[in-house]
Amino acid sequence: MPIAEVNAPIDAPRGLAGVIVTETQLGDVRGAEGFYHYCQYSAVELAAARSFEDVWYLMFHGELPSATQLAAFRAETAALRALPAAVRDALPALAHAGALSGPLAGLRTALSLLGAAAGFRPLYDIDADRRRADALAACAAVPTLITALHRLGQGLQPVEPRADLGHAANYLYMLTGEEPEPDRVRAIEAYLISTIDHGFNASTFTARVIASTGADLAACLVGAVGALSGPLHGGAPSRALDMLDAIGTPDRIDSWIRDSVLRGDRIMGFGHSVYRTEDPRSRMLRGVAEQIGGPLVEFAVQVEARVEALLAELKPGRELHTNVELYAGVVMELCGLPREMFTPTFCAARVVGWSANILEQAEDSKIIRPAARYVGPPPPQPLPAAAPR
Amino acid sequence: MPIAEVNAPIDAPRGLAGVIVTETQLGDVRGAEGFYHYCQYSAVELAAARSFEDVWYLMFHGELPSATQLAAFRAETAALRALPAAVRDALPALAHAGALSGPLAGLRTALSLLGAAAGFRPLYDIDADRRRADALAACAAVPTLITALHRLGQGLQPVEPRADLGHAANYLYMLTGEEPEPDRVRAIEAYLISTIDHGFNASTFTARVIASTGADLAACLVGAVGALSGPLHGGAPSRALDMLDAIGTPDRIDSWIRDSVLRGDRIMGFGHSVYRTEDPRSRMLRGVAEQIGGPLVEFAVQVEARVEALLAELKPGRELHTNVELYAGVVMELCGLPREMFTPTFCAARVVGWSANILEQAEDSKIIRPAARYVGPPPPQPLPAAAPR
Repeated sequence: MPIAEVNAPIDAPRGLAGVIVTETQLGDVRGAEGFYHYCQYSAVELAAARSFEDVWYLMFHGELPSATQLAAFRAETAALRALPAAVRDALPALAHAGALSGPLAGLRTALSLLGAAAGFRPLYDIDADRRRADALAACAAVPTLITALHRLGQGLQPVEPRADLGHAANYLYMLTGEEPEPDRVRAIEAYLISTIDHGFNASTFTARVIASTGADLAACLVGAVGALSGPLHGGAPSRALDMLDAIGTPDRIDSWIRDSVLRGDRIMGFGHSVYRTEDPRSRMLRGVAEQIGGPLVEFAVQVEARVEALLAELKPGRELHTNVELYAGVVMELCGLPREMFTPTFCAARVVGWSANILEQAEDSKIIRPAARYVGPPPPQPLPAAAPR
Repeated sequence: MPIAEVNAPIDAPRGLAGVIVTETQLGDVRGAEGFYHYCQYSAVELAAARSFEDVWYLMFHGELPSATQLAAFRAETAALRALPAAVRDALPALAHAGALSGPLAGLRTALSLLGAAAGFRPLYDIDADRRRADALAACAAVPTLITALHRLGQGLQPVEPRADLGHAANYLYMLTGEEPEPDRVRAIEAYLISTIDHGFNASTFTARVIASTGADLAACLVGAVGALSGPLHGGAPSRALDMLDAIGTPDRIDSWIRDSVLRGDRIMGFGHSVYRTEDPRSRMLRGVAEQIGGPLVEFAVQVEARVEALLAELKPGRELHTNVELYAGVVMELCGLPREMFTPTFCAARVVGWSANILEQAEDSKIIRPAARYVGPPPPQPLPAAAPR
């Protein structure tokens, strides 16, 4: 931590924008360069070349595993995929009750229950090994929770995890009960890796604030899932695909986009608050999608090209490129994920990044607690006569 | 919001101490004066003179209710105490699974489920009336959740809420199934009012960070419960009473305290990070306890006097007074609350303060998202050869 304590109140920019709250060794986003990284490696290079477990290990240990370490890590995490009986038995009730508020509300509840059932204890009451064990347990179980809640919501029985499959393959397997094609596994694995972390976003910050109180790992993760469910953060990753559906055919692209821009609508899947260049995740995922190919991919590439050209014409100087939403949606659709699973799938990857941040925060001992300025009428006003009790 | 946007990174004090993240009309703590307030009124005066519903209304509407408004508010909130069937049916499973991680983990899960079952929607997707309705529903149901989880954990059936009782009386009623004595109702009501809010603490901040993403009210509250469960925040309100038990009799006070201080142990229930004077909550709750009286109260007063004298002698210049823990514990014990219910009871009050903060934050539209500084090895390092996939 760089800075000494101060006592005088400090006025911060709105939303704490640009206020450095912590140091991290986990990664960063360099928006001007169109580059982001996990520890010392390019995230896009990792997504293109490595397994999910490789990068999960990197985020937890700061270095990529050797072949021996990886084999042990795969075995360790695969054994944690099955849910405790108390959680498995409660899931049907949670799936039923959660339908109205969406899949992240169900995951939030299930993850909270998992932490309680597994006996997670306050971060500051346990040592680093136990914290790591809790984090592995949560990250390994989240895909099981997500797919089980989804299947129960569809009136289907959950599919038990298979320890002989890799993390990404097992995720697709638990969704359908069928062993997925290798090209689909590779595609979803690249997506999942590219989504593990992305700078100091609101859900990661939430996880670290809760961690700074010493609360247990589930408390931190549940807060992060809650933050991700906010429209200003997680957004709606299926919106870009919904737009492709609405456009329908290549001949309608130009008129649809022009009409939308003239109406003042935002074009989904384009523009990013940090990247001024093309979103590096978008470029990588387009390549992943093109390796699979097919009409959806071709149409997405056509739409992308026309939208960029039209936005350059209609909004000159704005530098609006595809963000991660468009090709993330295309990849997930190619992998057979229904659209209501897009945000939960994002969570299945991001839980590793949140957990790594929580483990890092737990090494600090300072609670994160800023201040507020009271701006109401000056107290104490005399109490008016009480209404009868 | 006072401050314009800035782009250059700003180094903040550790833990964001003293960094003003928002303006609020809900209240403040003036540590040097030993004073805190809710809106324009002294919190201690409110606790001494008003009903819980009065102050709940104040926190939601910025003014105390008229007699007519209070009657309507009482009726509105009393009708919301009963749990949705989907939640009631799931509670036994949650109570069973949550035993290992403590009562706040159970409340966290149950509150998450309640929000999903009630169909809470993102704050930014609904209007202020609907946000208020969701907040009332959550605040009214939390005492029901807490008491039901506790009773289920004890092998007892939950007690259905009674709409003819006030909020505080009904809380004690749901715990035991017996109508509580008026002096106990008044005592717990004063405690609950005094605990509704207390400046910009870590759980309140957590609730506001999540709210700033536009997530639903349950997502915000669940994060706040998680933060409160951290040892650096919620602490363990029963510790001070455990200390009274350990001391045992008046003749052992001096030796027990001297030994503890010499060992370097912290004396539970004494000292506060903000108040330099006596904690105003402590003074008020001592008065509440003394109105009931009895051996526990007499002993607590004796211990308090001796500890203050001994700490002045052993730690001169430190100004260590009782904080809220000691007499809050005494009051809760006098009201028949078992010690494992002390922190959940705190939550039953604080959920009103969190909710008021969430409703206030929802009027803002700026996500709270600070920054971090990457301090690891410089990227991108070349990827080592991959282990076989």
